[in-house]
Amino acid sequence: MSEKIIYLDNNATTKSCDEAVQAMMPFFSEKYGNPSSMHTFGGEVGAYIKKAREQVSELIGAADPQEIVFTGCGTENSNMALRGLTDPRKRHIITTKVEHPCVLNVAKHLEKHHGYEITYLGVNSEGELDLDEYKDSIREDTGLIAVMWANNETGVIFPVEKMAEIAKEKNPKVLFFTDAVQSAGKIPVNVKNTKIDMLGISGHKIHAPKGVGAIYIKKGTLITPFMLGGHQERGKRGGTENVPGIVALGAASEQALRYLDDEVSRVKKLRDRLERGILEKTFNSRINGSRIKRVPNTTNISFEYIEGELILLHLSDLNICASSGSACTSGNLEPSHVLRAMGIPYTAVHGSIRFSLSRYTTDSDIDYVIDKIPAVINKLNSISPFQSELRELKEIKTAVKG
Amino acid sequence: MSEKIIYLDNNATTKSCDEAVQAMMPFFSEKYGNPSSMHTFGGEVGAYIKKAREQVSELIGAADPQEIVFTGCGTENSNMALRGLTDPRKRHIITTKVEHPCVLNVAKHLEKHHGYEITYLGVNSEGELDLDEYKDSIREDTGLIAVMWANNETGVIFPVEKMAEIAKEKNPKVLFFTDAVQSAGKIPVNVKNTKIDMLGISGHKIHAPKGVGAIYIKKGTLITPFMLGGHQERGKRGGTENVPGIVALGAASEQALRYLDDEVSRVKKLRDRLERGILEKTFNSRINGSRIKRVPNTTNISFEYIEGELILLHLSDLNICASSGSACTSGNLEPSHVLRAMGIPYTAVHGSIRFSLSRYTTDSDIDYVIDKIPAVINKLNSISPFQSELRELKEIKTAVKG
Repeated sequence: MSEKIIYLDNNATTKSCDEAVQAMMPFFSEKYGNPSSMHTFGGEVGAYIKKAREQVSELIGAADPQEIVFTGCGTENSNMALRGLTDPRKRHIITTKVEHPCVLNVAKHLEKHHGYEITYLGVNSEGELDLDEYKDSIREDTGLIAVMWANNETGVIFPVEKMAEIAKEKNPKVLFFTDAVQSAGKIPVNVKNTKIDMLGISGHKIHAPKGVGAIYIKKGTLITPFMLGGHQERGKRGGTENVPGIVALGAASEQALRYLDDEVSRVKKLRDRLERGILEKTFNSRINGSRIKRVPNTTNISFEYIEGELILLHLSDLNICASSGSACTSGNLEPSHVLRAMGIPYTAVHGSIRFSLSRYTTDSDIDYVIDKIPAVINKLNSISPFQSELRELKEIKTAVKG
Repeated sequence: MSEKIIYLDNNATTKSCDEAVQAMMPFFSEKYGNPSSMHTFGGEVGAYIKKAREQVSELIGAADPQEIVFTGCGTENSNMALRGLTDPRKRHIITTKVEHPCVLNVAKHLEKHHGYEITYLGVNSEGELDLDEYKDSIREDTGLIAVMWANNETGVIFPVEKMAEIAKEKNPKVLFFTDAVQSAGKIPVNVKNTKIDMLGISGHKIHAPKGVGAIYIKKGTLITPFMLGGHQERGKRGGTENVPGIVALGAASEQALRYLDDEVSRVKKLRDRLERGILEKTFNSRINGSRIKRVPNTTNISFEYIEGELILLHLSDLNICASSGSACTSGNLEPSHVLRAMGIPYTAVHGSIRFSLSRYTTDSDIDYVIDKIPAVINKLNSISPFQSELRELKEIKTAVKG
């Protein structure tokens, strides 16, 4: 067994890039001052936060760096966007059935405890939304629309720019939030000239460390802060700034922009080759989600009649890291709500594996996985209770026919 | 001018200790897996979080490490505690006028937007609470009491253990939360055998990095999560765990416990010597807050008739870092709400300087400050408009008398 880790779980979390780590290092024990301080030692730290704000702005095309608010994670972004509505008459929120739990669970909370009505838009078997249904769902009392840019489990891209346009045409006062943690750095994400009001990114999904995120809030967007406290982030987010994390997020954003071409070309080719290799060499396997409208690093493959977690464990023994459903759902053993919303049969949902690549994925990583997977799948197929039942069924049918 | 920074602003933020930085380093680019993952590479990270949970438990005396929930900062702890009440009939919250903005601003929000009634307890000129008044304020519909363990600006300690006892005697169902970010690591903080239900600490106040905190939630305490999302932290706090930050907080907690003796003896002596030195060598100066019930690292001194910010700037030029009011209030230029609640005259509030020491403070740091401060204060006294007015008044009086 190779000691090298083949890490194909980049939608769960990524390796911090050297640029991010190096950028943040001085801020632990040297430039450790509080940027709110009146002394130069602390105050000068503010310049580094300013730079990071500009770097994040560049990544997502914000017109003004002041539209970037640093947060603790992608989950905080979603909590902020969904729980920040200020108009008590706007108690309707539109979202989708395939959002990340950080949107869905906030929506459910607002529905259950705060008198909100939530429309959960469904998706078709390709994981795509029906835009007519979407348009029809927008009402006068709709306060917010929360639609992810790309799905964490399947990589399917939603046309959020167009959806924001549609929203504003029908109801100019509605706020449009997109969770872009899985699209930033993978496809061009640019809020400029869009009607998107808020957009969230997460550091650890783009090779910055865990524990830092950012939310774009378009100038003039009225939203109650979520993290109430001090005056930090111009009153939009209390709490002493996570200076090392913020500086690292800035550096990682710069790199994400730099590597975008690599992502949409080299990484995409690797992903496509991985996909082809697996589909060719295994049976009862299928891709989940649109193969066209998809971020270039992600593939979600179902191996029908096999338990995904068993596959993961076998892959883990081979030092291959992948995921079954999202990292956030795998822990609670519930079958993926995303694949279920797409109408994927349970037998395929349970056997779904997500491979998510990154700039660090190499040709030989992909060779290794294509080489190793068939044996794993064949072995599990042979011991699958489903398979023996299927065989039994086949034998009975043959006997009956005979 | 010495190039060395004399950092006496440890209540604003601290230098990350080497132990914390070294402990966290592997988790950026080596052990960067997501602890929720099914693969060993990610899953093994969970063991480090578990260790950190034990280290934090040790610091605050939690009976069970599972009572520790990792968060993003002290501000998040307070938001979680105050906004997590589940019983709609309990709409009364008790707090104090001298809490940190992360408690006060949440309280004001609940008061303004969610129909809560808040009792803000006052303090006397020493910064102390009246426990009879406190007891009287506890009602049947009181859902939560939020009282800081030690004040960030003055260092004054509140008898939270006793206050929790009083609370439960009068209303066994009330929840007692204490913001302990300024007491942990400075004085013994132990929830064992107390009636405290929730207690918050912040990493960057105890030589861990910014961007991580923890809240103790006693087993059986019913509270709605604040950060809604995935299943992390046993469903109590969504969002991918800030693994490097958590590991660093664990290591820093261990060190904080180790240095506790140093804090209450050596650091206290340094603080006392600093205080004496300054009071002896400057006029119109006074200590704010109880000199007895105080954390050992903090002194808050008013230089009457001088602008505190001017003092800070002059000190900053001498590479001395201090604070005027808390870091969180200094940014908005409002005179300290803590000192005003104590009835300190405005002319003294404006001229208040907080010096907060740490394990890294040395004898020579204190020598340097005692040596440099008198000239700064005398110079500012001589140009103070208050002083010239006082002189003028004196001259007029003399002339009148004459």
